[in-house]
Amino acid sequence: MTKCAVCGAAFHAGDYESLSRHFCGLAEKSDPGHVMWLNKNVTKKKTDVIELQRLLQVYFDFRPFGIKGWMKKRFIDRFYGESPHPFVLALQHPSKATLLGYVIEHQHFLRQWTRSCAYIIAKTDKVDVTLYELDNINTEFGGYGPDKPSHYELLLRMGESLGMGREKILATPPLPDTQSAITTWNEIAEKEHWLETMAAMHPLELIANKNLRLDGASVSYFDPLILQGNEVTDATKNFLREGYEADVEHSEVAMDLISKYSAELGTVEGVQATFLMSIDAFDRYLMARLERGKEFESS
Amino acid sequence: MTKCAVCGAAFHAGDYESLSRHFCGLAEKSDPGHVMWLNKNVTKKKTDVIELQRLLQVYFDFRPFGIKGWMKKRFIDRFYGESPHPFVLALQHPSKATLLGYVIEHQHFLRQWTRSCAYIIAKTDKVDVTLYELDNINTEFGGYGPDKPSHYELLLRMGESLGMGREKILATPPLPDTQSAITTWNEIAEKEHWLETMAAMHPLELIANKNLRLDGASVSYFDPLILQGNEVTDATKNFLREGYEADVEHSEVAMDLISKYSAELGTVEGVQATFLMSIDAFDRYLMARLERGKEFESS
Repeated sequence: MTKCAVCGAAFHAGDYESLSRHFCGLAEKSDPGHVMWLNKNVTKKKTDVIELQRLLQVYFDFRPFGIKGWMKKRFIDRFYGESPHPFVLALQHPSKATLLGYVIEHQHFLRQWTRSCAYIIAKTDKVDVTLYELDNINTEFGGYGPDKPSHYELLLRMGESLGMGREKILATPPLPDTQSAITTWNEIAEKEHWLETMAAMHPLELIANKNLRLDGASVSYFDPLILQGNEVTDATKNFLREGYEADVEHSEVAMDLISKYSAELGTVEGVQATFLMSIDAFDRYLMARLERGKEFESS
Repeated sequence: MTKCAVCGAAFHAGDYESLSRHFCGLAEKSDPGHVMWLNKNVTKKKTDVIELQRLLQVYFDFRPFGIKGWMKKRFIDRFYGESPHPFVLALQHPSKATLLGYVIEHQHFLRQWTRSCAYIIAKTDKVDVTLYELDNINTEFGGYGPDKPSHYELLLRMGESLGMGREKILATPPLPDTQSAITTWNEIAEKEHWLETMAAMHPLELIANKNLRLDGASVSYFDPLILQGNEVTDATKNFLREGYEADVEHSEVAMDLISKYSAELGTVEGVQATFLMSIDAFDRYLMARLERGKEFESS
């Protein structure tokens, strides 16, 4: 099924003509969501239905890269292209304010992360997917005992090392953009096929994948030099190092499972649309980390 | 909300008059499900609405025991009373056929178990519940590394020790009664509140709780003497011992969480009805283990 990555409107598989008419119709009405999506992803020029159909076909054609390569390419274009995402730029040599913004918003992300992965386990009938997601939740939220604390725990320790008490962190509700992104991810997990939920969540772990530069990313998530020296606290290094290392395997293995099962189940187009909807939410969510950070800039 | 434990029909909280009318109406039409439930749980005599209302009020009154004590009492009445469940009787000194029936049907139970617990994680906003369920899935299905295999793995090894190859076990679909019970549990997990899903699943772990005799059970799940000597294979002992030990803590801790949150959320009556619906399904499922075992009796 071909779906609109903005509103989820569904068309027959491969019917880019209808998708193109859908976009052109809404662009004529100046619908901000659809116009912005076209501008960001396909073209900034005004185009007719036929030209847009051609552009959409090219945009969604994953065959030259495989679905995994296509997702990486789209992710890099969005977050690691010529103008990397503002949060990524801020994280190269992060201020205390940026890191605190990260801590406060990301605790909510990781709670949703756990829920989304649990929905996949709840719905899948594939044992390899169950075991992958179980390990992922353990790493991100449950932890593997005192020697291997979860990323959630490492995040809270980073916050404490920056002078904010755990109770205060936990009691701070998310900003509206974080909440709206969480709602998007929860609705996908509740309503869509488990494979689309995988495609919504795990490619996001590419953000910290240190191998992404080999695939064309212009910068890494942060300047790896900050893991040495005293530019950031030890707890910050522990948190950033963990993600930097775990997320390579997490995102790669998950995308291999997505490739395998989207071919087996014949649902590549749904996977593509849900993935795109999710990276839009992720973009807003990363902006919310920066917005929260501003609260601490004078401190 | 007061619910019928047979069909889920819902009434105002505490409205046992309507529940009693509901049962009397269906009993008059000789509806087999409702009649059997009344016979098994409340009374075998034909009663009028007023008397039935009184009996139902007594049956559902958990105040003398607390909700945890009430669930234990109902569970013992059903499976460990004067006439223990036929599967429990067969497991006291189990034949190879009984154990093979256990293996084949229980693999499907444990897959559903994992899904049901995952739905709880997907829906809850309580961190203690998330961490409890995560540990439970790890113990039952994921395992904690090579030294601590999951119950699912121990079950498969028990089957292998009895001469049935793993591939053959995994390729055998469930019997209709197992499938129907699984469908009941999956529908509860999908549609109901996470607390009701907890109440559907975790009290079932009472079946192997070795402390249940202290609460009035007439026998234990199996004669503990079989854990010594050579009556059963080593892999059978390993499987039975694990359940016998882990399920004490699993069921007790879960029922404490159910008590805590059913009071906090004010949903005790929904919890009671869902628990009762689940033990009906469990009764059928245990019979399916015996039915499957019969296939091996001549061997």
